[in-house]
Amino acid sequence: MKAIVKAGPGRGFELTEVPRPEIGVRDALIRVRAAGICGTDVHIYQWDAWSAGRIKPPVVGGHEFVGVVEAVGRDVVHIKPGTRVSGEGHITCGHCRFCRTGRGHICRDVKIIGIDRDGCFAEYLSMPADNLWPVPDEISDRHAAVFDPLGNAMHSVTSTEVSGRSVLVIGAGAVGLFATAIARASGAARVLVSEPNAMKRDIALQVGADMVFDPFDAVVEGPIMDATESLGPEVVMEMSGATEGLKDAFKLVQNGGDVVLLGLPPDKVAVDWSHDIIFKGITIHAVSGRRMFDTWYRSQRFLLSGRMDIDPILTHDIAMEDFETGFQALLAGEAVKVTIRV
Amino acid sequence: MKAIVKAGPGRGFELTEVPRPEIGVRDALIRVRAAGICGTDVHIYQWDAWSAGRIKPPVVGGHEFVGVVEAVGRDVVHIKPGTRVSGEGHITCGHCRFCRTGRGHICRDVKIIGIDRDGCFAEYLSMPADNLWPVPDEISDRHAAVFDPLGNAMHSVTSTEVSGRSVLVIGAGAVGLFATAIARASGAARVLVSEPNAMKRDIALQVGADMVFDPFDAVVEGPIMDATESLGPEVVMEMSGATEGLKDAFKLVQNGGDVVLLGLPPDKVAVDWSHDIIFKGITIHAVSGRRMFDTWYRSQRFLLSGRMDIDPILTHDIAMEDFETGFQALLAGEAVKVTIRV
Amino acid sequence: MKAIVKAGPGRGFELTEVPRPEIGVRDALIRVRAAGICGTDVHIYQWDAWSAGRIKPPVVGGHEFVGVVEAVGRDVVHIKPGTRVSGEGHITCGHCRFCRTGRGHICRDVKIIGIDRDGCFAEYLSMPADNLWPVPDEISDRHAAVFDPLGNAMHSVTSTEVSGRSVLVIGAGAVGLFATAIARASGAARVLVSEPNAMKRDIALQVGADMVFDPFDAVVEGPIMDATESLGPEVVMEMSGATEGLKDAFKLVQNGGDVVLLGLPPDKVAVDWSHDIIFKGITIHAVSGRRMFDTWYRSQRFLLSGRMDIDPILTHDIAMEDFETGFQALLAGEAVKVTIRV
Amino acid sequence: MKAIVKAGPGRGFELTEVPRPEIGVRDALIRVRAAGICGTDVHIYQWDAWSAGRIKPPVVGGHEFVGVVEAVGRDVVHIKPGTRVSGEGHITCGHCRFCRTGRGHICRDVKIIGIDRDGCFAEYLSMPADNLWPVPDEISDRHAAVFDPLGNAMHSVTSTEVSGRSVLVIGAGAVGLFATAIARASGAARVLVSEPNAMKRDIALQVGADMVFDPFDAVVEGPIMDATESLGPEVVMEMSGATEGLKDAFKLVQNGGDVVLLGLPPDKVAVDWSHDIIFKGITIHAVSGRRMFDTWYRSQRFLLSGRMDIDPILTHDIAMEDFETGFQALLAGEAVKVTIRV
Repeated sequence: MKAIVKAGPGRGFELTEVPRPEIGVRDALIRVRAAGICGTDVHIYQWDAWSAGRIKPPVVGGHEFVGVVEAVGRDVVHIKPGTRVSGEGHITCGHCRFCRTGRGHICRDVKIIGIDRDGCFAEYLSMPADNLWPVPDEISDRHAAVFDPLGNAMHSVTSTEVSGRSVLVIGAGAVGLFATAIARASGAARVLVSEPNAMKRDIALQVGADMVFDPFDAVVEGPIMDATESLGPEVVMEMSGATEGLKDAFKLVQNGGDVVLLGLPPDKVAVDWSHDIIFKGITIHAVSGRRMFDTWYRSQRFLLSGRMDIDPILTHDIAMEDFETGFQALLAGEAVKVTIRV
Repeated sequence: MKAIVKAGPGRGFELTEVPRPEIGVRDALIRVRAAGICGTDVHIYQWDAWSAGRIKPPVVGGHEFVGVVEAVGRDVVHIKPGTRVSGEGHITCGHCRFCRTGRGHICRDVKIIGIDRDGCFAEYLSMPADNLWPVPDEISDRHAAVFDPLGNAMHSVTSTEVSGRSVLVIGAGAVGLFATAIARASGAARVLVSEPNAMKRDIALQVGADMVFDPFDAVVEGPIMDATESLGPEVVMEMSGATEGLKDAFKLVQNGGDVVLLGLPPDKVAVDWSHDIIFKGITIHAVSGRRMFDTWYRSQRFLLSGRMDIDPILTHDIAMEDFETGFQALLAGEAVKVTIRV
Repeated sequence: MKAIVKAGPGRGFELTEVPRPEIGVRDALIRVRAAGICGTDVHIYQWDAWSAGRIKPPVVGGHEFVGVVEAVGRDVVHIKPGTRVSGEGHITCGHCRFCRTGRGHICRDVKIIGIDRDGCFAEYLSMPADNLWPVPDEISDRHAAVFDPLGNAMHSVTSTEVSGRSVLVIGAGAVGLFATAIARASGAARVLVSEPNAMKRDIALQVGADMVFDPFDAVVEGPIMDATESLGPEVVMEMSGATEGLKDAFKLVQNGGDVVLLGLPPDKVAVDWSHDIIFKGITIHAVSGRRMFDTWYRSQRFLLSGRMDIDPILTHDIAMEDFETGFQALLAGEAVKVTIRV
Repeated sequence: MKAIVKAGPGRGFELTEVPRPEIGVRDALIRVRAAGICGTDVHIYQWDAWSAGRIKPPVVGGHEFVGVVEAVGRDVVHIKPGTRVSGEGHITCGHCRFCRTGRGHICRDVKIIGIDRDGCFAEYLSMPADNLWPVPDEISDRHAAVFDPLGNAMHSVTSTEVSGRSVLVIGAGAVGLFATAIARASGAARVLVSEPNAMKRDIALQVGADMVFDPFDAVVEGPIMDATESLGPEVVMEMSGATEGLKDAFKLVQNGGDVVLLGLPPDKVAVDWSHDIIFKGITIHAVSGRRMFDTWYRSQRFLLSGRMDIDPILTHDIAMEDFETGFQALLAGEAVKVTIRV
């Protein structure tokens, strides 16, 4: 079958032929129809320090997808061939303390498709049937293909309370923009977005931001204070992973407010714990992965309800053969979410 | 001054002349501009058992209002004459355990304007300055006059989580309809409203309900289950105070769901605690009054954000002299929220 | 093998020979060492209306146990023969919305051992390996045999906050007494227990109650108010399932307090929703089963920490042949928790 | 009257005569009986950078106290001369968003006695009557004098859940030790304390720690992991304000756990946000001051219940004339909590 593979150490992916994957007794084989490119895939493409330390090539890339179940293992009874599905790419151990208490998203022994085992940038994907998410007909393939990052955004927004409160999203990548749309549709009194890329700021406005800011503009703090009764936003979602984004989050958040952290800073970051965190009496919520499967249920309902429009975030739709174009657009900051037709 | 007064035991109010109220050192005198008629005022009009037991006539009615501060007592420094204000009608003792822990809404020694002391159906109102709520110019008098019931609805909706969840509102009176609008604007995946009055069902649809039901229709349960994945709504808000409404709330709510209780049943009601409550593992949130002043901040932001349209709920606007018309419209089920121009 | 079996409709159990159970690919076979008799088993013994409607004889009774794994099915990898285990008797479907969101305790399609399938009153028990709970050596067989009801109590106490608050436990059966011990060890400022049986009141004092009351005593309310600053207890745990217990819970609880419901009233119960629930602004937590496996982890740590002494609650330890004695002692109110040596 | 005064910039305090304070219409005059020396007072004694930036000498020191009301202002009705009281030293503005929503502990315009206005190291103290806390006879003067730091500890412990969970307290100063005692009495499954001072580690064991560690010992992480099922503690309370304490908090905390921050690091501290915070999915609770007056109620009940013994923490009791001895003992690490008899 065709697959986009990290063939060995170093930059890039390659489109090549690999054997169709096998399935175990509790697995399903999925004929992939569409896949999304995540920022993580871009890191792997670039072969940064994190990738070099974690990935053991060769491995098929990708963890965001929609497809159709082609076959299931002997012990799979609750899902049938022919079902259209997306799936949770975190394969949890099922037996650690976290898995046994409904917190698989922080499983200590997780394996992620496209990272620790073969992923979905391929015609076929094998994964445990329990990780699959049947998709209603009303949801398009492109929407179903991004259930995973939409779930990260949902996990972030629902980790605190936004209704009737002011929200600042720092970083308008795909997850930041999904979070913007969800926060707006969840009753945030005012949604502010800070993002240096003008195109992304424009998309933020399309999906629900009330105001957008360029963090490199010298006069950001004043307008943000003006927009938040001089108290700062009650909720700040750090989605950029940038050092300055993290510092701004704590500097700007209102006393007693909430900071949600999803972006991953590459290095250690020093902040003023006493003045920006402790005296303010804030709460910080670190978000990793998606709560299984609570965030999936909620994301699906948002998609079905038509309460929000995520289409402006899905900037590119390309054929598998053109995957290089997708990565280049992402690297150039010209794309937000690229989906691949398989 | 002119005032609408409960002059003595028995049905009705009367418009009459009474002395302008005095103010104490920590009070403010407010020139009332508009007032809302609450269901409680209708009970007092009717002189039901509750009213007869609590009200000591003569008393000026009304507790929902907007006006302008005319004068303040000697010790009032933070609010100035000329400020347009609404106000929290619950005058709390300030010294009980509940007041001392930020829970004045359940103060054991509360006095309510229009019930336990003179209210706002008058040209002038005297109340503690700490209870006042300055109103921004962007909010109209009619909206400011209903901050109180809007706050009850806000308190109800924020007592649980609605974003991405299905919500059933039982009873589309003013508070039920405000709750409908707030739940929809707060990201409820689906908002269902059950109400026997066709006009009110129509308003529910205007302010955000996805579906409406007549509870006297024989086939209600089926459509509600159809609309909620056969599991029942995750959140039920009982706003009717009707015996059957309360029973339906527990019968319909989903396993693990939340029931919010605001409507006041006149009598004891028997329910099936084992099957409808305990086995389901639900949580029940009893809501009384407004959290001071958290719900006021949130309500104000919802009004300012334009995220919801409450105008269809404000069905009647009448002159003080026509107050009888307003009560009759409410008693006939032809009005939802009546505001009085003072 | 020997087993205590509900052989057919009608009162009683019988000790008889039945075939050793089979195991499926994901099951384990456990050689039972001790089992606890639950109030539910007593209902089944009595063949009350609930039992007659749910139980399909013949069925081996019992769901509280400790034993040693004798064999495991082909697909079981994380648990080995020879491991001493207790186990969660609720076999959940694994695929409903509740199971998929970490809330298996409210699974809509649960099967319970000893009720819906053969239980642990037998030499051997077959159940899914995922339901097993390995028991550390430091925990005795008798303590391990009652993990299940201890977990109900833990679920109840942790469904609200007790540290520094006053707690009233209504009903000192096994779960009520476990809850008394846990609440005391969790920092409850004052633990009150209401129970008509004098022996059980005495045990309540032994395991941590500060004061005990007989609910049939005419002057109960006064002393409870005296013990709670005239405000009533902040937390009430209804563990009796008695109609009057439920009424008292709402009548006595403090404004803004929490009522935890675990006892199952046999019939509908009418309460004064307006005065005892809604005006008070309380929260009601309905508790069913045990949160898997959060309550198991916590219960285990309480047992290991030695923070509480549950031995006074384990009143009887009998041989399998003497099971009738155990049921009679429970029916006579002379026993609290009876364990059976198998 | 006699008072311990910061007379001007520079090191030290001096015992001198100053005029007895005046009271306003809503104030009370308190005849102080005992006062506690806080770490903050030591910072002011040392005249560190923070003190030099904030304190405007001359100012009477001290904010922890017990005394008897001698006189009250004209508008004070709920507290009478002769009442024994402690008091909340944070004088809040009463009108900001935080004060109006029951969160006075993060008031933006707070004035603290002994810092921003005259404090309690004096024979007489004037402060708003609403800040006073009447003390029951059963509580001794020395215990009543430390309600303030006990409240910080209570605020910290109740900001998350400790019952049945493992807790690590970093830093065994007075607040760390109070937190140790409260956590143990609140059902923490295991309480670990990390502290370099051997005397303080010994007191930690006396007040409820199960194990103590010296953070400068090379092999600390291993034993902490051994004591926490190799997962790290579920709750870490950082009470030291040390740079390494903060780093250890995040490094050691269990996935999905809670970190409570109360100690104030003097400088910015860099941590590994990605690995130690975000991937772990933890929650961080920043704690400032005491929740008014919820933490006071709880602290009082803990003292009255006899559930914990805080006497080992109150290491020194000195006369006002010997205040220098107290500060020297604190600076030398030979004292934990010093109370001054006035």
